[in-house]
Amino acid sequence: MSGRVKGFRFAGVHGGVKADDALDLGLVFATQPAVASGVFTKNRVRAAPVVISERRLKAGLCQAILVNSGNANACTGKQGRQAALALTRAAAASLGVPAALVVPASTGVIGTQLPRENIEAAIPALVADLSEAGATRFARAIMTTDRGPKVARAEVKVGRTTCQVLGIAKGAGMIHPNMATTLAFVATDAPLRRATLSKLLRQASEVTFNRATVDGDTSTNDSIYALASGAATDRVIVEKTAAAGRFTGALTEVLESLAKKIVADGEGAEHLVRIEVEGARTDADAVQIARTIAGSQLVKTALHGCDPNWGRILAAAGRSGARFNPDHVSMKIGNLLIFERGTPLMTAKNETKAAVIMKRPEYVISVTVGGGHGLGHYWTCDLGHEYVRINADYRT
Amino acid sequence: MSGRVKGFRFAGVHGGVKADDALDLGLVFATQPAVASGVFTKNRVRAAPVVISERRLKAGLCQAILVNSGNANACTGKQGRQAALALTRAAAASLGVPAALVVPASTGVIGTQLPRENIEAAIPALVADLSEAGATRFARAIMTTDRGPKVARAEVKVGRTTCQVLGIAKGAGMIHPNMATTLAFVATDAPLRRATLSKLLRQASEVTFNRATVDGDTSTNDSIYALASGAATDRVIVEKTAAAGRFTGALTEVLESLAKKIVADGEGAEHLVRIEVEGARTDADAVQIARTIAGSQLVKTALHGCDPNWGRILAAAGRSGARFNPDHVSMKIGNLLIFERGTPLMTAKNETKAAVIMKRPEYVISVTVGGGHGLGHYWTCDLGHEYVRINADYRT
Repeated sequence: MSGRVKGFRFAGVHGGVKADDALDLGLVFATQPAVASGVFTKNRVRAAPVVISERRLKAGLCQAILVNSGNANACTGKQGRQAALALTRAAAASLGVPAALVVPASTGVIGTQLPRENIEAAIPALVADLSEAGATRFARAIMTTDRGPKVARAEVKVGRTTCQVLGIAKGAGMIHPNMATTLAFVATDAPLRRATLSKLLRQASEVTFNRATVDGDTSTNDSIYALASGAATDRVIVEKTAAAGRFTGALTEVLESLAKKIVADGEGAEHLVRIEVEGARTDADAVQIARTIAGSQLVKTALHGCDPNWGRILAAAGRSGARFNPDHVSMKIGNLLIFERGTPLMTAKNETKAAVIMKRPEYVISVTVGGGHGLGHYWTCDLGHEYVRINADYRT
Repeated sequence: MSGRVKGFRFAGVHGGVKADDALDLGLVFATQPAVASGVFTKNRVRAAPVVISERRLKAGLCQAILVNSGNANACTGKQGRQAALALTRAAAASLGVPAALVVPASTGVIGTQLPRENIEAAIPALVADLSEAGATRFARAIMTTDRGPKVARAEVKVGRTTCQVLGIAKGAGMIHPNMATTLAFVATDAPLRRATLSKLLRQASEVTFNRATVDGDTSTNDSIYALASGAATDRVIVEKTAAAGRFTGALTEVLESLAKKIVADGEGAEHLVRIEVEGARTDADAVQIARTIAGSQLVKTALHGCDPNWGRILAAAGRSGARFNPDHVSMKIGNLLIFERGTPLMTAKNETKAAVIMKRPEYVISVTVGGGHGLGHYWTCDLGHEYVRINADYRT
């Protein structure tokens, strides 16, 4: 069936982590050991499942990912590590696979021990729930403050075979009451070697997940897992071939779609905004300028107010560390030129036009900083009262 | 009279920049050319008065600073530069001093030309307003969104003479509708050489103004000006003497007091919080950790909610780039230990105690990250609805 990924099954059940009956336990299962790679948080404070997953994925093969929401299993010390290991053992036993091929992932509150017995008791039901069509249930089971499940798909031709790339993610800024987390899972039935998958995953996440900001905070649990079953065809994708190029395109499309869904679902966000920078001296400079604009609290509050505040954008670019001449800067909101070679074009008519564009759920702000060839972009969202309410007021 | 600084006079009048009758034009005047130094914004986008002041102060002497609020004279091109130069010429003529000894400073909206004629017409009244006791009027004239004037004083013994160090600043996050600016002015009657004043000003601003954040944005106009008249005594303060040490202490005290007033007056801020970090590998690491915690949107919203959210603090420290072992981290809010060697101590009793401390207008959060000798701090404030209202909602 269209959209299914050969060699994979997915599940989602209630495992007694969340207080209500919501789905909170998910499983990705590869019927045969899959080629696997991961990208993990650079935060020095790393949750137990991150440490375990990173170590196990180094071997290059994985058969199952056990994920819980509602508890991040972070800052939980030795007891937390033991719980994560015990749960992957229990899942492995239930699935009939080696424990070393099962990796854990967690998201939710930090500093609280996992309800290990509840989860263990739910594992048989979780395994029984596995199905080829279970991706949406899995996507729901990993949600925390997300407004909905986040799933993206793309297809890629390898020889005459159409392979599937399926991505599932969660994340929406910070999770009540303690921690932001982004988790993403990619399953593909295309055949790749471990080194190829690692390299392409790193490249694709660099231009997608690493170009997205809700609030500038990197969590203790951020992780992307990628599994390739190779079940669709025997024709292995080799680096630097047309097939590898197409696969990278599909993988990037899936991760880009997920990253956009996460930013658009940024806590309290009403607008998804792509900051595009061109004319910088280098691509790295352009990304640095885009990142600084995208992360500026003042720019983000202006986006919330639908305010074409070129001054804040320019000031953020100015403090980015990248070199450019302010007299050569131009800016557009959507297709509307609001600032040209150092001079604002803010007539009353332009103010009105800009406000109309900025009321859209999604639009682009383009900033040209000179005549260089450097290009870069970043995804951001607005910062409004709802963000403050979610992150400050829940205790009052 | 106590508090007056020998050799200086100050003025503040309405100069027709702001629409209402509020004071918007200020003047610092040294009766003789004073030794002068400045510290200016590192933003690449620099207002006309910043460029002119930095160039003129390189000569090491200054006799007057002409300051307007209500208009930043930034992104105003050649016309803006010409206006700033013309206004310093007009002030110089009215004061009877060389134009090269007069420097301009501006704060307010950007991208709008100064009302040059209005200001020129007000200069005679401004000069007539000069008085030894005019510091408060000057402090009011440079205000924008500030809730009140910001003045700090300290005394320092040089030989048998008591010298004065007077500081005046403005700043409160961003200024309607476009730009944040911090301006600070220091006048002392202690005698210092230019190189000494420059060095001590840089040192003192590094541990005060450069350790304070409201919203992480550096403006196009941020400037600190320091003038030393030497009118109190002939005994010049020489570097690396006890007098120089005492002078640095007094200057740091004045700048620290002003920096705290600015953060406490951060738009919408209800709490002034000192983030102290110790046990880092180096001082630079400690400051980097403190800066990342102080700048975290998630920490700042938690401060607003009076929420002892150790998880957000730890996660911010973890992404600071400094190396430390999370299992060696402890944290206090005020004197209350909330996290010890990697483990939260959040009993219901501690939660209540922490919330009581966090309701105070000012308190300290101390984070020990290991056994190193690195120490550092940063001043920050909470991020609440009022900040969003000021920075997003004014257009709606």
